[in-house]
Amino acid sequence: MQKMTDWLAEVKWTEDGLVPAIVQDHTSGRVLMFAWMDRAALAETAASGRAVFWSRSRRSVWRKGESSGHVQRVRELWLDCDGDVVLLRVEQEGGIACHTGRLSCFFRRLQDGRWEAIDPVLKDPADIYGDSSR
Amino acid sequence: MQKMTDWLAEVKWTEDGLVPAIVQDHTSGRVLMFAWMDRAALAETAASGRAVFWSRSRRSVWRKGESSGHVQRVRELWLDCDGDVVLLRVEQEGGIACHTGRLSCFFRRLQDGRWEAIDPVLKDPADIYGDSSR
Repeated sequence: MQKMTDWLAEVKWTEDGLVPAIVQDHTSGRVLMFAWMDRAALAETAASGRAVFWSRSRRSVWRKGESSGHVQRVRELWLDCDGDVVLLRVEQEGGIACHTGRLSCFFRRLQDGRWEAIDPVLKDPADIYGDSSR
Repeated sequence: MQKMTDWLAEVKWTEDGLVPAIVQDHTSGRVLMFAWMDRAALAETAASGRAVFWSRSRRSVWRKGESSGHVQRVRELWLDCDGDVVLLRVEQEGGIACHTGRLSCFFRRLQDGRWEAIDPVLKDPADIYGDSSR
């Protein structure tokens, strides 16, 4: 009988025990953000249906939306051909994934040799985080 | 006067001088693949309009489509909020991005605790690469 955690064993983790995670809006297809997961974060994401990451800068679990309320409800989890990258298709609560208050972290597009901010700030980060960190 | 390469200086490279690159189909929004670029690859991508990566396994430049013909025509280049991930929106020539002969490298979806291959193989890899490597 296959154990329910066998799928985790198929993921090829980095030396640091992490896997890159791409997050995409399930409806619009917009790529919202890129982050990392450790095994526990990926397991919790699948079990809870909410995106959980590993913050490399803070060296701690990062339950997306814990401070901001901008939870990502995971509709689908995908794995790539090499087994070393995961893709989350999510519903983005609040319509804001980025800590700058924008829909997507990918809000700058290269135009005429410059990165131009395309997406508007939908909410002041100070109002999202109450002056605390993300 | 701003130099045309200033935009490259805004990218935050890893210790190894790389940046993660997400490739997305410009029309359908499907995430096609994930790879890495060094500075030269990103510069060439922007200049040529064709996706160029750095192959970490082969430790060499990887001009996508060179063996397979499955060139990615870059329509847009995006940078994320931290400046450490790029997103390419492309036209995928041949409709195949994955070396397995599928549209996308993300062809396995988690279902009932298993990774299930969803996307069909559109072309036998042996026919794509003529039995050589990708």
